Amino acid sequence: MQLKKIVAIIRNRFLIDVEARLVEMRVKGISVTKVKGYGEYANFFNHNWLVTHSQIEIFTEEGRVDEIVAAIMETANTGQEGDGILAILPVSKLYRIRTKSEITQDEF
Amino acid sequence: MQLKKIVAIIRNRFLIDVEARLVEMRVKGISVTKVKGYGEYANFFNHNWLVTHSQIEIFTEEGRVDEIVAAIMETANTGQEGDGILAILPVSKLYRIRTKSEITQDEF
Amino acid sequence: MQLKKIVAIIRNRFLIDVEARLVEMRVKGISVTKVKGYGEYANFFNHNWLVTHSQIEIFTEEGRVDEIVAAIMETANTGQEGDGILAILPVSKLYRIRTKSEITQDEF
Repeated sequence: MQLKKIVAIIRNRFLIDVEARLVEMRVKGISVTKVKGYGEYANFFNHNWLVTHSQIEIFTEEGRVDEIVAAIMETANTGQEGDGILAILPVSKLYRIRTKSEITQDEF
Repeated sequence: MQLKKIVAIIRNRFLIDVEARLVEMRVKGISVTKVKGYGEYANFFNHNWLVTHSQIEIFTEEGRVDEIVAAIMETANTGQEGDGILAILPVSKLYRIRTKSEITQDEF
Repeated sequence: MQLKKIVAIIRNRFLIDVEARLVEMRVKGISVTKVKGYGEYANFFNHNWLVTHSQIEIFTEEGRVDEIVAAIMETANTGQEGDGILAILPVSKLYRIRTKSEITQDEF
């Protein structure tokens, strides 16, 4: 089993829709934080270039990555600057604290 | 030296105990953020499924990962849904800003 | 193209300078969160050992990592404990939500 971390940085106003979509897809265990950043055309002379986005982090197995990426891109897309990005990172191991054991394939 | 990032998402009420345990083990440089997420049995029809957890991030070397994972799982475990997860991610390089140099083996 | 994630944990008071420097270097798409942590000489008996730092995350391609790391270390360095750390993590893939497509080399 190959494990992956998906990081999605999206517009705040899409957060509830994306979360609902992920629950519907039975994606387990997302975590959400607020982040500040600047967009694709940040202006050095504009001191207000920081805007707030929502960052969603999902640990999953490689076989589910493509469908999750597609669902988030479809739900959080306006076609305008500032829609955000998605990153896929390799993960070595995942453990569930409740059971004190590694998470197995059939849990995704 | 193999470097790793440990990400622990735990119940808030265990944060102080886990931090104290990590200090006792001479684990250096944890960082903590508040995250929101949903548990293993998220209910699509329940709009209050988001709960707050604490996310602890630790950069360390591979040889220390197992003891840190065991300590966190022991300290943050209730055996109930919502205990959270632990993820181990590969890290390419670590630098200390104070010395403007890469972090070496004997610093862990 | 090799993709990387740079995580910089720096003193809050350097955040504006580091951001300005990154904009100047045409680094796109940083995200910033506040984190709590403890320093290199955390005191187990001191309950106030948690200090707030700023965590900057940047997704970029490997060819830009060294110049970004050098710029952050130069801008955020005091030479004292608590200056923070920089971590480089491998990234498998990056997508831009606006275009619903993978981010290509010439976008960095």
